[in-house]
Amino acid sequence: MGTSEATARATKGGRGARERILRTAVQLFAREGIHATGIAKLTEVAHVSTRTFYQHFPSKEALVSAYVQRIESDSDGPVGVEAILERSDLSARERLLELFADSPPIEEIVRGCPLHNTAVETAGTMPEAAALVERHKRQFTARLVKTAAEAGARDPETLGRQLAVLFEGARALSTSINDSQPYQDVRALAEALINQETGPT
Amino acid sequence: MGTSEATARATKGGRGARERILRTAVQLFAREGIHATGIAKLTEVAHVSTRTFYQHFPSKEALVSAYVQRIESDSDGPVGVEAILERSDLSARERLLELFADSPPIEEIVRGCPLHNTAVETAGTMPEAAALVERHKRQFTARLVKTAAEAGARDPETLGRQLAVLFEGARALSTSINDSQPYQDVRALAEALINQETGPT
Repeated sequence: MGTSEATARATKGGRGARERILRTAVQLFAREGIHATGIAKLTEVAHVSTRTFYQHFPSKEALVSAYVQRIESDSDGPVGVEAILERSDLSARERLLELFADSPPIEEIVRGCPLHNTAVETAGTMPEAAALVERHKRQFTARLVKTAAEAGARDPETLGRQLAVLFEGARALSTSINDSQPYQDVRALAEALINQETGPT
Repeated sequence: MGTSEATARATKGGRGARERILRTAVQLFAREGIHATGIAKLTEVAHVSTRTFYQHFPSKEALVSAYVQRIESDSDGPVGVEAILERSDLSARERLLELFADSPPIEEIVRGCPLHNTAVETAGTMPEAAALVERHKRQFTARLVKTAAEAGARDPETLGRQLAVLFEGARALSTSINDSQPYQDVRALAEALINQETGPT
């Protein structure tokens, strides 16, 4: 392959190649795991060369960080449910309740929260990705506390933090037992806590 | 190396080699993750040859399954706290409370529950290990329900399941934010639920 052909291909790949790699990461990392998905598999499924891969992502960790950011910003993705906290058509109390009304998609293998799963796989080995997850989860807890305050909770800090644990716990236990039952167990508890702290409608 | 020397070494390794490999897995899998820890690293740290490794564990998955069983049975290990549910010197209600009084070890990187982390890393890729974690977590929830019934809970099934989510959630969120604060947030909530369901002392 001549230089001009290589250049043409890289140019043609362009942003399209980067996007294909990211979409493939979203699909494979979430389903099979980050470490279980090698560069060879990623490039094969994304239809890019190894060279193109490294032109867009200098390392696997760079891709993992971009993956976390993509998961965070994708409103149709698995953490898109968190956007409920921004809905202006619901009262603050309704937003909290609605967040826990969410049911997980029916899947053969329950995979829980991809951001938490990234923390599990990267803590200690990929500090940048782990830090991105930490920031996201802390911001999410802060949004819960803020929404709890708007809903008139007597102790919004405590309610917000407890709801954050329930949210994470439903997803984590669902992964551990490969069953979405914990979402339902948490729903009733979250409703009771929200009602107790903000008073009934 | 002659055949007799190789045989002698394998024999000398014997159960000692298997134990060293397992201990190394407990240390490295829990800290750095399962997929992040390759066979090369395991054999180097455990001081065994690759050949000896495969004599004891035909595959990485076989080691991961043995790792789960070791974590389950190690009373000094990270899930040893679950043995609180068997303590005969405490009432059923005290056992439930004591389970949530537990604080995580102070560590530079918070790693949560190694069994859950194994589920995250093996769901979809190592079905045997994932099934072992699922069995453990379901049994743990069943023990919580049984203890809740002994404690006189009005709805032991619901209380036991909710406590299971709180237990898992504290560990999972701690991993996500690399901070043990969720253990404290869950403690107060667990106490409130236990007291509410079983009545004050």
